[in-house]
Amino acid sequence: MGTPAGLTDARAAAPYDAAAGQYYDVAVIGGGVVGHGIAWQVRRSGRTVALIDDAPGTGASWAAAGMLAPVSELHYQEEDLLELMLESSRLWPDFAAQLQPVAAEPAGTGTGNEAAAGTGYLTAPTIAVGADAADRRALADLRTVQQACGLVVEPLTVRAARRREPLLSPGISCAFDIPADHQVDPRLLLARIAALLAADSGSHAVQRRAAGLLWQDGHVAGVSLAGGGEVRARETIVANGLGAAELGGLPPGLRLPLRPVHGDILRLRVPARLRPLLGSTVRGLVRGVPVYIVPRQDGTVVIGATQREVALGEPAASGAGGAVSAGGVYALLRDAQQLLPAVAELELLEATARARPATPDNAPLLGRVADQAAGRPGDIAGLIIATGFFRHGILLTPVAAQICQQLLDGMADPRWTRFRPGRFSAGVPAADPHTAVARTPGRMDPHYPSPYPEHSKETP
Amino acid sequence: MGTPAGLTDARAAAPYDAAAGQYYDVAVIGGGVVGHGIAWQVRRSGRTVALIDDAPGTGASWAAAGMLAPVSELHYQEEDLLELMLESSRLWPDFAAQLQPVAAEPAGTGTGNEAAAGTGYLTAPTIAVGADAADRRALADLRTVQQACGLVVEPLTVRAARRREPLLSPGISCAFDIPADHQVDPRLLLARIAALLAADSGSHAVQRRAAGLLWQDGHVAGVSLAGGGEVRARETIVANGLGAAELGGLPPGLRLPLRPVHGDILRLRVPARLRPLLGSTVRGLVRGVPVYIVPRQDGTVVIGATQREVALGEPAASGAGGAVSAGGVYALLRDAQQLLPAVAELELLEATARARPATPDNAPLLGRVADQAAGRPGDIAGLIIATGFFRHGILLTPVAAQICQQLLDGMADPRWTRFRPGRFSAGVPAADPHTAVARTPGRMDPHYPSPYPEHSKETP
Repeated sequence: MGTPAGLTDARAAAPYDAAAGQYYDVAVIGGGVVGHGIAWQVRRSGRTVALIDDAPGTGASWAAAGMLAPVSELHYQEEDLLELMLESSRLWPDFAAQLQPVAAEPAGTGTGNEAAAGTGYLTAPTIAVGADAADRRALADLRTVQQACGLVVEPLTVRAARRREPLLSPGISCAFDIPADHQVDPRLLLARIAALLAADSGSHAVQRRAAGLLWQDGHVAGVSLAGGGEVRARETIVANGLGAAELGGLPPGLRLPLRPVHGDILRLRVPARLRPLLGSTVRGLVRGVPVYIVPRQDGTVVIGATQREVALGEPAASGAGGAVSAGGVYALLRDAQQLLPAVAELELLEATARARPATPDNAPLLGRVADQAAGRPGDIAGLIIATGFFRHGILLTPVAAQICQQLLDGMADPRWTRFRPGRFSAGVPAADPHTAVARTPGRMDPHYPSPYPEHSKETP
Repeated sequence: MGTPAGLTDARAAAPYDAAAGQYYDVAVIGGGVVGHGIAWQVRRSGRTVALIDDAPGTGASWAAAGMLAPVSELHYQEEDLLELMLESSRLWPDFAAQLQPVAAEPAGTGTGNEAAAGTGYLTAPTIAVGADAADRRALADLRTVQQACGLVVEPLTVRAARRREPLLSPGISCAFDIPADHQVDPRLLLARIAALLAADSGSHAVQRRAAGLLWQDGHVAGVSLAGGGEVRARETIVANGLGAAELGGLPPGLRLPLRPVHGDILRLRVPARLRPLLGSTVRGLVRGVPVYIVPRQDGTVVIGATQREVALGEPAASGAGGAVSAGGVYALLRDAQQLLPAVAELELLEATARARPATPDNAPLLGRVADQAAGRPGDIAGLIIATGFFRHGILLTPVAAQICQQLLDGMADPRWTRFRPGRFSAGVPAADPHTAVARTPGRMDPHYPSPYPEHSKETP
């Protein structure tokens, strides 16, 4: 496809030659949407990049609905996260536009509903609806918080909501228009970035499982691969979701408190006679339980929202859990039908379950890690963590990519230091703007003990 | 695997050589469970056989639950069918035993619950339960009919039912023990027969689509294949379900009134902590709608019962319809949970939909076809129809195979002439015991007009 859109060729990529001691500029561990987004941004900044994943795109990204919904996703006491979500939301139009084929029209013009070719990015609005009186009160209370945060959430009468979405049940108790919450198709998005990277000689997809971090002279020097082999890199970005905590060679004392939160998601096909089923994404509250219905332009819809802290059956080796809960599927169909009775007429194409990486404060683990060696101020060089995105991985991809690039450039935005990955680790200094710029490898102490290759899992 | 069990080698199969004008003894069109069962029986009788199907085992057999349930499946005004179902039920233990590996133990001994290796045949009983008072009355009324037909259906108290099946809901309104209704695993069964046939030089699987019947001198002489080629055979058995009515070259005036009745079926995995989920097959009536829960010995269960006369969305080319209804899945899970709340804890493995070939009287189209040529008494030689088994294909496989063999042997059991395939065809003589024995090809009139190769579809 020629030179991919958005790739800077000023710094031509040299082919990687491990035997010759060559380094990638950046190794990204994890081939989900976040990892791909970071790798693409890294490459656009002129750096060579290796993206390491033995099964790219099959984790949480495979199940994600792709709602870009900072407003709807605002939860009580998560206002810190809101700023990050809003920043990413602002980045999304340009991020999606950069991914468009060069010959296509610019995104964001026209009706606002055309897909940015290849990613399914849509600026169609979201409509929040409640099923009963308690749901109405809950959504009205949430609106108060949303408005206090400066977000636009406008009440609609049920009649007005049904004028806009005629298939909504007349029995809904309330409706709110949320124009700023959009969507993207995560599978298309990932495939589009992967295709751009594949066409670019400065990036390399390593379809192997990362075993751990490689250390050299007190800094991270790349990634060791399961079954042998390694990828050497000046900087390594850990973006493999739940797998991050299982990597060998994590910095001593660094605790990555990731836990799997499972979700079931359904994909359904709308029969021709019912198209378009919806013009807006519907986010519902049914007897206090959330459910969403996301219409795609290909005539399918995604229905989801279940959250299970415990995986069904025997735990999968990866902890990512692909088991779909019959009770979860039942509840999704029940609640979706209550808001949109035509759901019963749809064809069930797929039921999928995946685990998302949650953290104790529901915010990501994103940034560099303070060096704990005695008398060594600053952060561990060569290492960036970008995981724990929980429900927000798709929305937060552009801002995560931007933050990673800033860190690679030696800058750190003080707004984001509160998300530094060491914040749950006793003994690892918390956010400190003065340490946010990593030392360069040249300043490393060669006698610093390397925790690698023991592959010890340092998560007490 | 050496000589397959149950195959008679007295009449060694000569390799088929179309160029040399050679014929199979029998060509079977249709590679579902019925077609496989017939082919196997044909081969056991010493005849060579070709089984023709471009996608064997992917039709209604793929979705079938495999209940062998003449008692539970008794419907009002279907007493004619009952005799056929009971006859097949009597044949099942021997049919299953003959399919066992030679070295294995005989079936039917021991606890009665051991699987006949390779087919999943189980003689575990069925328990019928109702959800509400109306369901209790309906099941009690049905029992009156069942008893009048000499069938054993014993009432159980809810307490006794829950002693036997502790996970049944305490809220069920009634329970009945039906010891004679058993089960088999249709996928295992089909694979087992296919393996036995594959290991036998006297049978040949032709993975091509049958286009129509070949005629010669007024009798059917084999099968023409889509895309060219043919399989010549002395007798042709049409056992391809809904596809039967679409075959070219059907006898003029023969109407095969097959219609697709869709069903959704779920396969779920029982987590280790809930095993065994059930010891019996549960057949429920929930607000008047049937649902069944069939436990397999591999730790899975099958839940089904939906019937839809209309396929979802655009019709599939084959009419077999693979679209799964979201509303059907919802209703199955809802009703199954009402009887067995632990269903919510299961893992959903698969949702499948297939169409079954139904007839106006819900009984199969099974037998030879009367010859309509002027002054030609008797049946068309070389042709047997075996389709329209609707919900009962798995149960009826042994008796269908037996009836086909009897017809091949020149015998006809007068009990089954009521199922002759011409009974819905104006101008095609109905059952006539005197015409039940086909003429041999040697007695054919060479001037009888051949409807083939025009492939006209004779279903007005």
